Amino acid sequence: MASSFCPKQALSFTSSASAHQLHQSRAIPRDIHVRFPASGSLPSSRYGVKSKAARLKVSATKVMDQSPSKSRSKAPTVVEVDLGNRSYPIYIGAGLLDQPELLQRHIHGKRVLVVTNTTVAPLYLDRTISALTDGNPNVTVESVILPDGEQFKNMETLMKVFDKAIESRLDRRCTFVALGGGVIGDMCGYAAASYLRGVNFIQIPTTVMAQVDSSVGGKTGINHPLGKNMIGAFYQPQCVLVDTDPLTTLPDKELASGLAEVIKYGLIRDAEFFEWQEQNMPLLLARDPTAFTYAIKRSCENKADVVSQDEKEGGLRATLNLGHTFGHAVETGFGYGQWLHGEAVAAGTVMAVDMSHRLGWIDDSLVERVHKILQQAKLPTSPPETMTVEMFKSIMAVDKKVADGKLRLILLKGPLGNCVFTGDYDQKALDETLRAFSKS
Amino acid sequence: MASSFCPKQALSFTSSASAHQLHQSRAIPRDIHVRFPASGSLPSSRYGVKSKAARLKVSATKVMDQSPSKSRSKAPTVVEVDLGNRSYPIYIGAGLLDQPELLQRHIHGKRVLVVTNTTVAPLYLDRTISALTDGNPNVTVESVILPDGEQFKNMETLMKVFDKAIESRLDRRCTFVALGGGVIGDMCGYAAASYLRGVNFIQIPTTVMAQVDSSVGGKTGINHPLGKNMIGAFYQPQCVLVDTDPLTTLPDKELASGLAEVIKYGLIRDAEFFEWQEQNMPLLLARDPTAFTYAIKRSCENKADVVSQDEKEGGLRATLNLGHTFGHAVETGFGYGQWLHGEAVAAGTVMAVDMSHRLGWIDDSLVERVHKILQQAKLPTSPPETMTVEMFKSIMAVDKKVADGKLRLILLKGPLGNCVFTGDYDQKALDETLRAFSKS
Repeated sequence: MASSFCPKQALSFTSSASAHQLHQSRAIPRDIHVRFPASGSLPSSRYGVKSKAARLKVSATKVMDQSPSKSRSKAPTVVEVDLGNRSYPIYIGAGLLDQPELLQRHIHGKRVLVVTNTTVAPLYLDRTISALTDGNPNVTVESVILPDGEQFKNMETLMKVFDKAIESRLDRRCTFVALGGGVIGDMCGYAAASYLRGVNFIQIPTTVMAQVDSSVGGKTGINHPLGKNMIGAFYQPQCVLVDTDPLTTLPDKELASGLAEVIKYGLIRDAEFFEWQEQNMPLLLARDPTAFTYAIKRSCENKADVVSQDEKEGGLRATLNLGHTFGHAVETGFGYGQWLHGEAVAAGTVMAVDMSHRLGWIDDSLVERVHKILQQAKLPTSPPETMTVEMFKSIMAVDKKVADGKLRLILLKGPLGNCVFTGDYDQKALDETLRAFSKS
Repeated sequence: MASSFCPKQALSFTSSASAHQLHQSRAIPRDIHVRFPASGSLPSSRYGVKSKAARLKVSATKVMDQSPSKSRSKAPTVVEVDLGNRSYPIYIGAGLLDQPELLQRHIHGKRVLVVTNTTVAPLYLDRTISALTDGNPNVTVESVILPDGEQFKNMETLMKVFDKAIESRLDRRCTFVALGGGVIGDMCGYAAASYLRGVNFIQIPTTVMAQVDSSVGGKTGINHPLGKNMIGAFYQPQCVLVDTDPLTTLPDKELASGLAEVIKYGLIRDAEFFEWQEQNMPLLLARDPTAFTYAIKRSCENKADVVSQDEKEGGLRATLNLGHTFGHAVETGFGYGQWLHGEAVAAGTVMAVDMSHRLGWIDDSLVERVHKILQQAKLPTSPPETMTVEMFKSIMAVDKKVADGKLRLILLKGPLGNCVFTGDYDQKALDETLRAFSKS
């Protein structure tokens, strides 16, 4: 069960090693060839839903670099999300914002609106505008800079995007570009889906959370005071450009938050990836670009595989929400923006794992491994102390996975890498989990 | 060129005859068999866009009535909108709200939210709830009653729908039902498209405007202070139920407003239908149910034919917007709700026709016929006097049909029933039209 590409001796870092040391040590050579199992042989899982044949195409094609003069330019890794005529590529690599041709091939029309926030704009807006316009004088770029944080993912902030688009007289041939984390991607995507009933859309995720999860798959939307992501659209981008450079400026909390989703993929469907993470967490915390490129690629491959089979969350796709039902309750109940999304998901994952264990569906050792890896990733393993059983129950009652009044949950079942999406569980186990993790 | 189903001698009404007299006279027998040309032989038009083969299926199937005990029950006319796996039927006829099986076959899940307004609710909400629940005890119905008028077609009002849905804990298997005119249909449709990223949706249009146009084809949305329908989605309903009974309670102005869209179909693509209207306008003004059923059916067939070929307005569908670019400027500039949509479209149609004539694309007689039929329908033939050239220009600059800065218009060209959608016209003609119809 050892990782298939990374010799164990390369993984003997202590967690106390400094980021700088780790980065310099290059334990994993930057040009290592990643021998990743072909999509057809991705570890199979029991989902409790009928799985169609995997349709993920992981492109081995290297995109031609048309500006050889730039020394940093390197062909990106490409993961293709296969959705028929709405298919699109995810480009992954370092320095991709310095390769204008990657973005420009996906711009139709002459007008672009970059949607970003007050944190990201000073760091990456100019570079993004350059990437959009270098050698492309016909394109003009507008930008709208929103306040930063989940608490602003609401209708009021969304209207600022529409205001800017209309004031700028953007027409149907314009392109909206989301430059930021998950909140920006979700809001910009929903704005793109709705402006003039739909315009082109590109994702440039700048946080781990957005790079490994929220920018891929077309879920967009905003929060309602009573529930997270209650208003939105399934709307696919033209491309996702994942430049790993912005990870260097990402706060530690944001980094950890994203790792919660990386860990999720391992737990629900990719045991081998989980084991790789157990070994390589120190490298990820040290922001090693090669390790991160691999983690992002493998996360995107897992997500693309699921989304290709179940774009609109008929069943399989819901499994990507492990820990999210409990986590959304934390975000809504504790106040949007108080905890980062991934922090809430981490606590929610522990709760889902606890419940799975109470149901007798997983053994003790898996519970321990989950606790351990989340602690390693510096993520919480329990919800805020102010959460009550009643808060969980009332917020979870409006979860999108409720069907005809029944709350369906993603729970682990069987060996590592297997989960179910089900409403068929003993209610007692849920009650016990809620009582164990919150005040009554 | 005479109407193919209605003998001319049946049309000798004077426009001063009272509605009551006309209604009683039954000039067209209620059970007349409408010999309408098969869809494949709908009058062909030049659109300035490449037309695919017509894919409209006009179903000759009569829907089985499963409650023969109800004396009013009569199989509805069915027009099918052919959009692959998003196809849906339009049921047209009198007393359809008294045939619960028509609606109930399209309800999935157990929860329904009826969205209606303060005018329609006292008249038809109870009947609609009965139609949804009679013999169907598993279904529970919530309702939200919005203020009536185009001036409320905005984000603030839309949020009331989301509030109600979330407070009622409606889940993804719920159905939203739009009961009302075009404003309700547009808002409820956009809410259905966005709530939990999309739930089932049914249209019950109660105005001529909604029955012949806005309820069919999946365009949904709200206005922005700077432009009409700027925020929305293409989102198709499960079915459209057109009961002609509510026309009896429709104010005269609303009736006339809807006729503007009926007239449009004739002008852009169906000369024979236009000629029928020239002959039968008195019957329509008298709300003759048989004449109206025919006008609605033929309008829906025209719309379904266009939408089936071009769902997302790549080109052909834009032709349905004859008069709308000028008309939207009137609605936005004069204030939402000051003029009804169809009144603004009527004035806009006269302006589009004037411009087509200045370009030398249509002859004098067609200009006269347009004026005459609009006057017959009691519709305005010029915009409000307060509109200025500058107001038109600034509002039209943000029209959805602007592409890369160029305003494309729907203009008549050639004999009756032919139009083009084009940005290739002499700007001088547009300027002259604007000056002729508004203050400088």
